[in-house]
Amino acid sequence: MIVETLATGDELRLGEIVDTNSAYIAQALADHGLTVSRMTVVGDARHDIAAAIAEAAARADVVLVTGGLGPTDDDLGREALADVLGVGLEIRPEAVQAIADRIGRPPNAKNVRQARAPVGVDLIANTCGTAPGMCARCGACTVYAMPGVPYEMEQMLALSVLPAMLEAREDAAGASARRYFVVHGVPESEVAIALDAIHDPAIVAGTRVSHGSVLIRLWAHAGGPDEVQRALEVAGGIVIERFGSAICGEGDHDLAYFAGHALIDRGLTVAVAESCTGGTVAARLASVSGISAALREAVVAYSDDAKVRRLGVDARLLREHGAVSAEVARAMAEGIRVASGADVGVATTGIAGPAGGSAEKPVGLVYVASASAEGNDVSEKRFRGNRAAIVERSAETALWMLLNEARRR
Amino acid sequence: MIVETLATGDELRLGEIVDTNSAYIAQALADHGLTVSRMTVVGDARHDIAAAIAEAAARADVVLVTGGLGPTDDDLGREALADVLGVGLEIRPEAVQAIADRIGRPPNAKNVRQARAPVGVDLIANTCGTAPGMCARCGACTVYAMPGVPYEMEQMLALSVLPAMLEAREDAAGASARRYFVVHGVPESEVAIALDAIHDPAIVAGTRVSHGSVLIRLWAHAGGPDEVQRALEVAGGIVIERFGSAICGEGDHDLAYFAGHALIDRGLTVAVAESCTGGTVAARLASVSGISAALREAVVAYSDDAKVRRLGVDARLLREHGAVSAEVARAMAEGIRVASGADVGVATTGIAGPAGGSAEKPVGLVYVASASAEGNDVSEKRFRGNRAAIVERSAETALWMLLNEARRR
Repeated sequence: MIVETLATGDELRLGEIVDTNSAYIAQALADHGLTVSRMTVVGDARHDIAAAIAEAAARADVVLVTGGLGPTDDDLGREALADVLGVGLEIRPEAVQAIADRIGRPPNAKNVRQARAPVGVDLIANTCGTAPGMCARCGACTVYAMPGVPYEMEQMLALSVLPAMLEAREDAAGASARRYFVVHGVPESEVAIALDAIHDPAIVAGTRVSHGSVLIRLWAHAGGPDEVQRALEVAGGIVIERFGSAICGEGDHDLAYFAGHALIDRGLTVAVAESCTGGTVAARLASVSGISAALREAVVAYSDDAKVRRLGVDARLLREHGAVSAEVARAMAEGIRVASGADVGVATTGIAGPAGGSAEKPVGLVYVASASAEGNDVSEKRFRGNRAAIVERSAETALWMLLNEARRR
Repeated sequence: MIVETLATGDELRLGEIVDTNSAYIAQALADHGLTVSRMTVVGDARHDIAAAIAEAAARADVVLVTGGLGPTDDDLGREALADVLGVGLEIRPEAVQAIADRIGRPPNAKNVRQARAPVGVDLIANTCGTAPGMCARCGACTVYAMPGVPYEMEQMLALSVLPAMLEAREDAAGASARRYFVVHGVPESEVAIALDAIHDPAIVAGTRVSHGSVLIRLWAHAGGPDEVQRALEVAGGIVIERFGSAICGEGDHDLAYFAGHALIDRGLTVAVAESCTGGTVAARLASVSGISAALREAVVAYSDDAKVRRLGVDARLLREHGAVSAEVARAMAEGIRVASGADVGVATTGIAGPAGGSAEKPVGLVYVASASAEGNDVSEKRFRGNRAAIVERSAETALWMLLNEARRR
């Protein structure tokens, strides 16, 4: 199945934002053994969009278009698709109704623009926005048009577009299934080298970095479901044998999911004390549905004062070692644990930059600590990258320590 | 001048990394009044690269290719360009010498690959890597091939390619510039309707949703810089008149940036109490460099117990109104303000879902409160969307309240 993406929007071609939608789509498809052969970005001009759709449809079996479905006059994706199909636009009553339901009032003129579609196309439900998606046959090619707002596109891809593509493929031949593992603390290049040990031609193994950990994707395609299961069993066994305790868990989830569920499953409670990560550890945990059973509380204590008052850190430690030190990280983790009554405390302190670094304590120096009734643990890290990257990798380290605290029970 | 970019590499088309080079090029060109009309991404296959170069060269005056110039066997950019030009490859002695100078030893076989070029092309010096760039005439189009390593490409673009393009530009008279505003609390469709009041043909106005607020982009293109400035002045005036206090600020930034800088600039301190947002408000603020001067502390208090103990919320309020209520939101904001000694407290409590909703208190019901010495303010919201969308929009509301607290000083 030849697949191309087409992202539309002047903000993309002007370089104001980077086209992350196409990469997201390519990754989501790769998880199912489908690859994107070409990605194209054009602006908002109707003719440019239409030309790009027609060209892609001539090359590919499926074209996935993002953007151009907004309510404004510069959203011309519908018009462009109609041009390619050689039909006019019509207002679709079911789309008007869906928009009214979503916004809770009668649609205005701009909203009604979003209810128009080329005559004869199928509409695709938008579960978290107003613009419906569209599916059209264009010669031998199927064109899907999705909104450009990332979470709307992601939902539509997962709920409607990808299932339809997979159904079309299953009709073709054979069976397929996937298996995922998340590995922490091993560089992606080493993971990739280790996966070379899987020689089964039925298996396609791939990796992707997610929040600083590595997702391993095993995709099996063979004549029948039994064959597929056997291939995944053997390949998964190789992954487990090679990476052992570096595996966070099995499944296409992030480390926060595995750490959160490990805590919930074991009935453990956790409290978080954050300095350099500024709330990211808590926010990552909070992304896990059901985490309220485990997450007692979190404190973001940037200032020395807050570290003393909220976390009970000894002011002498701050004076002698500085806020960015193993000693203070440990005291923060112990402090939040005792104050909250949680089973486990976890803490971060470091220099996320760009300012605040010194020769002795450079930007990227981070201490992450965990504490429980059994004792405590401090990890010193020196991360590279910008502020956002340092925060992300510090938070990932804290989640990893939490997962391992939970595993020890 | 019609310009297209072409980024090559399997890691791009598989979505393993995002194509940031093309966006970088588009921004660098925009600073000189040049715009990119189309961006394309293809993999490492020689035929795919050659086809994409030939197609782009048929449409554009200039094609900027990145990637495919590395030393390995799957770097086939040179071969593809030779195919398009209908010539062979030759080893260029001046490139061999430049590579030897850079690596400080005689080049090995892989290095020498990088010294090959299609017969007759001009080489472009690489000031920070081994692969020279190339410049070729392809019909009426000029094709520049640059390395895919971002800093090598950026240097080559700045030192050689962009100067050459500017020299070649026929229409040297035109000028362009951009102006941005961020608007909160107005649906994108209404913003778009308001922008219809800008009738100047020199102005292209566009919108984009960012974290639940709307970014307005005014792009002006006219004969000279004075004309451009006047057009932006008038169009900006229309935006300011229409949206007034709904404008978070001017510039291509997010609301956290505007709120954070408003606090820092006025010397105000802030403390955050989060329930449903789980640390996202603090993490958004923490993304602002220099925020440690303003952000006293944040507390994520999921449990009733933590709300009472950490924030001093009256247990009676929790019993009578429930944790998701205007009363509790107000008490959380007041509580964190008093406990931290900050000038402003802000708090969130709500039901982010997917579980936890009821007929009376559905998923998406969120209360956001701010408190200062002057009094307090509570906003009741009913957001739609999934857990991540509800958290994002709740956090955006809290940042908006913080911005307005700062503005009142």
